[in-house]
Amino acid sequence: MYEGAVQDLIDELGRLPGVGPKSAQRLAFHLLAADEDEVARLVSALTEVKRRVRFCSVCGNVAQEEQCRICLDPRRDTTVLCVVEEPKDVVAIERTREFRGRYHVLGGAISPIEGVGPDDLRVRELLSRLASGEVTEVILATDPNLEGEATATYLARMLKPMGLRVTRLASGLPVGGDLEYADEVTLGRAFEGRRLLDV
Amino acid sequence: MYEGAVQDLIDELGRLPGVGPKSAQRLAFHLLAADEDEVARLVSALTEVKRRVRFCSVCGNVAQEEQCRICLDPRRDTTVLCVVEEPKDVVAIERTREFRGRYHVLGGAISPIEGVGPDDLRVRELLSRLASGEVTEVILATDPNLEGEATATYLARMLKPMGLRVTRLASGLPVGGDLEYADEVTLGRAFEGRRLLDV
Repeated sequence: MYEGAVQDLIDELGRLPGVGPKSAQRLAFHLLAADEDEVARLVSALTEVKRRVRFCSVCGNVAQEEQCRICLDPRRDTTVLCVVEEPKDVVAIERTREFRGRYHVLGGAISPIEGVGPDDLRVRELLSRLASGEVTEVILATDPNLEGEATATYLARMLKPMGLRVTRLASGLPVGGDLEYADEVTLGRAFEGRRLLDV
Repeated sequence: MYEGAVQDLIDELGRLPGVGPKSAQRLAFHLLAADEDEVARLVSALTEVKRRVRFCSVCGNVAQEEQCRICLDPRRDTTVLCVVEEPKDVVAIERTREFRGRYHVLGGAISPIEGVGPDDLRVRELLSRLASGEVTEVILATDPNLEGEATATYLARMLKPMGLRVTRLASGLPVGGDLEYADEVTLGRAFEGRRLLDV
């Protein structure tokens, strides 16, 4: 329907999550009419993010070096480990300023429907981090939805026999939602009220 | 809050119309985790659209040559001219298959609030196209909202003394909305039922 290059851009934008055909068209025409500079900045941000960003070799968070800023920070408490699904969850928790330990990013949650099992997550890496015995508490901060709860239960059953204190973020987070959408106060309270998992 | 390159991408995506901070973050993390290929295709589509797409020297529609495909098509009726605000309106009208004339894209609508006057639109280009006398009817297909109506009235007052048949798309389009969101049937009916403007 459109000239080739415009249609190509609409198609590529329409592949992004949450961008429908009408939004893709609106974005494409915005970019078409935008300054060369604006588009150049977007292109450069896309290129740079693929070129420079990698995942921390320790915790799996996004990083620009071999390790992320949190793993490299000597002021962080190395005895408490907070397990989350995604790097954006790290950012949401950092925003509360309630937590001074370190993180472990699983890269998702167990989901039989989507065919994601424990082996598809960074569970092995978690176990080898715990092997040194430095960590005494693991906070399971997976999303408060079906997959997140299943993942927390799975990990708790595995970690409790290792003599670790295994906790889960307190209720207070709206069930069925995504951790990243909780406001700072709710998420902070959830940290304060974390409970021992009884499995 | 994020590593530099990720934050830069979130900032650039957040500048796009209709993309809020949470969507920008979600898109950025999607792209971060996406295949190199997917991001490369998006980057190339963005670059190509700025490199190859320009605006038709005759009608102002998007084009990959000096003129757009519609202006270059000898089968189009050169006596009827349909005036629209944006290139996406051309696509919406083409989809109805009701119209076989040519287009004139204004590049917007008169809006005192946004400081857009007739001189900011391609009105001079419209008058010089009409000077040859080939066009006998001008269909004013600007959006059925305040700015579109104001633009249609302004143009009708200017064009009627030139002895042209000046028409406006029939009511049937939902008032207050955008032309591009009308379904094909509604937009086709609006074309059939266009009326002479009485100003």
